[in-house]
Amino acid sequence: MKPNATYHDLVIVGAGPAGLMAAAWASRLRLDTRLLDDKADRVQNGRADGLHTRTMEILDSFGLATSIERAAYQLREICSWNPDPEDESIIRRTQRVLSKEEDLGRYCQMGIHQGFIEQTFIDFLNTEGYVHVERNIQTKSLQIDEACTADHDAYPLTLRISHNRPPRAGNMSDETSGSPEEETIKAKYVLGTDGGHSWVRKQLSLQMNGDRTKKHFGVIDIIPITDFPDIRVSCSVHSSQNGSIMTIPREGRLVRLYVQLAETGSEGDGLNTSNITPEMIVETASKILSPYKLSYSHCDWWSVYTVGQQYASNFSVDNRVFLAGDAVHTHSPTMGAGMNVSMQDTYNLMWKLGQVANGIAQPHILHTYNSERRSVAIQLIDLDRKMSNFYSDGPGKETRDYDKFREQFRTFLSGVSVQYGPNILVPPNCAKELSTSPSEQFKLQSNQSLASNIIIGQRLPSALIMNHAEANIVHAHTLLPSDGRWRLLILPGDISNSSQMSRLHELASYLASPSSFVHTFTPTHAQIHSIVEVLTIHAAPRYKVEPFDLPEILHPFDAKLGDVQGEEGNFDDAYEQWGVNKDMGCVAVVRPDQHVAYLCELEGARQLESYFSQILLPQRMEN
Amino acid sequence: MKPNATYHDLVIVGAGPAGLMAAAWASRLRLDTRLLDDKADRVQNGRADGLHTRTMEILDSFGLATSIERAAYQLREICSWNPDPEDESIIRRTQRVLSKEEDLGRYCQMGIHQGFIEQTFIDFLNTEGYVHVERNIQTKSLQIDEACTADHDAYPLTLRISHNRPPRAGNMSDETSGSPEEETIKAKYVLGTDGGHSWVRKQLSLQMNGDRTKKHFGVIDIIPITDFPDIRVSCSVHSSQNGSIMTIPREGRLVRLYVQLAETGSEGDGLNTSNITPEMIVETASKILSPYKLSYSHCDWWSVYTVGQQYASNFSVDNRVFLAGDAVHTHSPTMGAGMNVSMQDTYNLMWKLGQVANGIAQPHILHTYNSERRSVAIQLIDLDRKMSNFYSDGPGKETRDYDKFREQFRTFLSGVSVQYGPNILVPPNCAKELSTSPSEQFKLQSNQSLASNIIIGQRLPSALIMNHAEANIVHAHTLLPSDGRWRLLILPGDISNSSQMSRLHELASYLASPSSFVHTFTPTHAQIHSIVEVLTIHAAPRYKVEPFDLPEILHPFDAKLGDVQGEEGNFDDAYEQWGVNKDMGCVAVVRPDQHVAYLCELEGARQLESYFSQILLPQRMEN
Repeated sequence: MKPNATYHDLVIVGAGPAGLMAAAWASRLRLDTRLLDDKADRVQNGRADGLHTRTMEILDSFGLATSIERAAYQLREICSWNPDPEDESIIRRTQRVLSKEEDLGRYCQMGIHQGFIEQTFIDFLNTEGYVHVERNIQTKSLQIDEACTADHDAYPLTLRISHNRPPRAGNMSDETSGSPEEETIKAKYVLGTDGGHSWVRKQLSLQMNGDRTKKHFGVIDIIPITDFPDIRVSCSVHSSQNGSIMTIPREGRLVRLYVQLAETGSEGDGLNTSNITPEMIVETASKILSPYKLSYSHCDWWSVYTVGQQYASNFSVDNRVFLAGDAVHTHSPTMGAGMNVSMQDTYNLMWKLGQVANGIAQPHILHTYNSERRSVAIQLIDLDRKMSNFYSDGPGKETRDYDKFREQFRTFLSGVSVQYGPNILVPPNCAKELSTSPSEQFKLQSNQSLASNIIIGQRLPSALIMNHAEANIVHAHTLLPSDGRWRLLILPGDISNSSQMSRLHELASYLASPSSFVHTFTPTHAQIHSIVEVLTIHAAPRYKVEPFDLPEILHPFDAKLGDVQGEEGNFDDAYEQWGVNKDMGCVAVVRPDQHVAYLCELEGARQLESYFSQILLPQRMEN
Repeated sequence: MKPNATYHDLVIVGAGPAGLMAAAWASRLRLDTRLLDDKADRVQNGRADGLHTRTMEILDSFGLATSIERAAYQLREICSWNPDPEDESIIRRTQRVLSKEEDLGRYCQMGIHQGFIEQTFIDFLNTEGYVHVERNIQTKSLQIDEACTADHDAYPLTLRISHNRPPRAGNMSDETSGSPEEETIKAKYVLGTDGGHSWVRKQLSLQMNGDRTKKHFGVIDIIPITDFPDIRVSCSVHSSQNGSIMTIPREGRLVRLYVQLAETGSEGDGLNTSNITPEMIVETASKILSPYKLSYSHCDWWSVYTVGQQYASNFSVDNRVFLAGDAVHTHSPTMGAGMNVSMQDTYNLMWKLGQVANGIAQPHILHTYNSERRSVAIQLIDLDRKMSNFYSDGPGKETRDYDKFREQFRTFLSGVSVQYGPNILVPPNCAKELSTSPSEQFKLQSNQSLASNIIIGQRLPSALIMNHAEANIVHAHTLLPSDGRWRLLILPGDISNSSQMSRLHELASYLASPSSFVHTFTPTHAQIHSIVEVLTIHAAPRYKVEPFDLPEILHPFDAKLGDVQGEEGNFDDAYEQWGVNKDMGCVAVVRPDQHVAYLCELEGARQLESYFSQILLPQRMEN
């Protein structure tokens, strides 16, 4: 070990969307973080180009959705085109399908290029001022000191890097003491978000499962000159003889085309992909679109890819080195899911890593990263195989009923159906999981029937609520910003009904006691809601209850600022949408990533305490 | 005249909200503009604090609404408090009223301080890079050369200013050639947005009508510590003996209070306003709010104002010097209208000034600034008198029914009901105005019955429309950004009906002819839609019509970019909301400020030509 090593909590290798999402969390949680990239600048054009509703919700939790929504292209409709039965040499529209993502979350599907998203994150990081991208960095070696990986105060990782900058004047001859451009970093954690050819993955000798096919597609971003009437909506086009295309309209009058290039089969790869030009891709596209014409003057970006599906055998090693994004799952781009799933990988990982590094949560929660995200990657790989075949198998019954085909993955694609657990963070539902797989592992059980549409393990469904004190109407998710806090979401039902009000008071009086988890897991001098924030959404007619009728723990008082919390809301519809009985109510534990971890009755104080004691670390002595 | 004078199209004196709105237009229209302010920085806190729905629409037309909406406090409810009939020494809530501004436009009423709005404009100007605020500027003299005011290529105005900066090193002894800090500006136009004590107004010797009363109010922004339950909504509070308060919740937990200070009557002014302290204001407020308590630790800003209503005899001189905002109308702040009306003054003026200065429009349209905005100021002054009395007259029948009282001015306050004309820009409605006041002045008449809810002279009402080619749903106003363009809004009705489609084709073939106003008023090398943009919103079922069925003038083709326009929309509901018959249709001329200027049938090509020929200047020869 060199004496001049620098010490950091976390090193992120790769500043693409997954790495930048990780850095956004690291910034919010104030982790001492290095963010390294081997390239000279961010992506300028091309590459990934779609955002789904769950990703937009996540971006909004960092305050980043507004500018993206403004710049992006809304994708609300997909048209399916197939050979005309009367003349198979030309295509005709067979179906119009609404994408309906905005019914699943509060955003519709968006088309926007990866570089814009990266820039949005970079601006965010620069404004916050805690983490910055370091570019032109070459990684040299990564060593893990196995002896101390269990001690989360130790720095078991040694990363050697070099800064590929021209040597500074004055240091030119300073070669005896080693190159001035090299650096040794000692880190608690390393995250590899360095793409399909991941250097970090190679250091760990992790295997990729699955394989690549011999099917090739051209990808190209052009401003099209065409008489094809559906050029400004997304299309799935199958010709009888010339192959298939998927189109995605984009910001700035661009259109992205995915063009099937050659019928390569078991005879081996007859196509030399290095000879392909953008002109060839558009010429092929033009044949597929016949009788319509297609040409262009401006090409923004293009590439060729080979269909394949692969995923890593493990997403982490020793809970010290983690991999995410293309580094652990690669597939074809036609689903428009890759960037989304990659960002969601690190969105899942980083709040856990941050809470462990900051001494708030117990290190064993880090195991859930691999189990939660690897199962999502496997689902994605399965669906991608279906989607690839859909485009390469030629027209047929399935391509004519695109709507039905799409229903198989619409919800998964939107991202809202991703469900975690059961695991240490998400205890099983008493009614379901335990009956089929009883286990000693879980002391606790959730009660799904208390909120039939708040699915345990999924993100809290979107709903509008009204702030009681302010009369403002907001989306429930805006109460759940990505600031690292857990939320105790109390749904006491109709508290103009005195029995519900007294149940709420009983829960509140437990929460207010110095021995409750709200206190014991909160550092002594921190504000009472800084680790577990208590939010209340009641269903009483607003005019029948005054804010000050609610116990003080639900709206803490600060001698200087008065009532600090103004979040107590009410809204009848939210109860209906969430499937919560107004005469019963419930309590939901919401993780820092907006996923619902636990559901219990208003009398569940002890279970809640038991839940948090498995996950968080006590911060003060009980009196 | 000094030889070293600089020449500019426009000098704006005063960089408050009205001056900054003017500068935003000047920047968009690329006017050579100086923006001068005598202070060292923008407003930091306090002062104006409310935005109404029309102002938000205008801000959005410059792309500025999103960040303001995010930072502002939504004002959705107003509670009225009056003496408790059972114990007149305390107050009780008598009414809850929804402000419902979001029903009139697409924004609710917002609470946010003036400094934030100023900063939003300053950032906009810096990003555009054409106009910058110059601070610490002292204006010295303004001269008008009457001999050349009629020639709009001339520079009849001479403004002498001095830069109040410390003299630079090296220039200290350079006093023989005159002070280096003085400057002479020759300008085509001067705009005075320099507040209630306007220096520009004084140079013009314009009189203010109206007067000031002897009623005084304290204004204060505090973070309140209180048990008053409605502290986070806006309130109108009348006590029996201690006076009245209006409250407005604000961003960052602040609350603005307007507190009636003293019962000063015909006996003369018994209150020495220079002795008032913030503690006195809050103490008075606390008495009024009894039985509730009110105190504070943090006071952000405070002031004392004397009720009065005044407006200038004229808003412009020789169509060369213009006044706007507090410089021409002052009143009490309780309506929350001042900053809104002031910004709307210059929003009205500047597109006209820009089009005249750029040689696009005829100078006589400048006369409409005075007539259009002075009548708004007079309405405002009248309402303000009512509002002031409401707060100073003590509790009564009117204060108990706040809802009814507020209905008198709710629509005016929102800004959406402001109606211009009849004048040269807004010909009268044939059915109405002409029958009561026939006039030779107007060759043209609008036909209001074609679109019963698109009120001639008002801004186009908000409605959602779907982009036909893209399937995106947008607010109609987003098609009308403040870029200086006129819009020909063609509403051809249900064009799946062949007679409507052929009427549309007939209109389009006129517009496409080289002699149509779309061509003749557009400079030879400019894009065809750069002066008058043609927008089409049809009401056919979207699946029955293809975008390419529409004539090309409605979606111009560019050899490089393909179809440049993608704005043709359709939406049944918009027709219903706008009161347009789908089997009839109509054409609306929309001014660059989104106000509807003219309404005619689809066959109105000749009237449209006649309309524009009164206003615009021909740019090319007819062939």
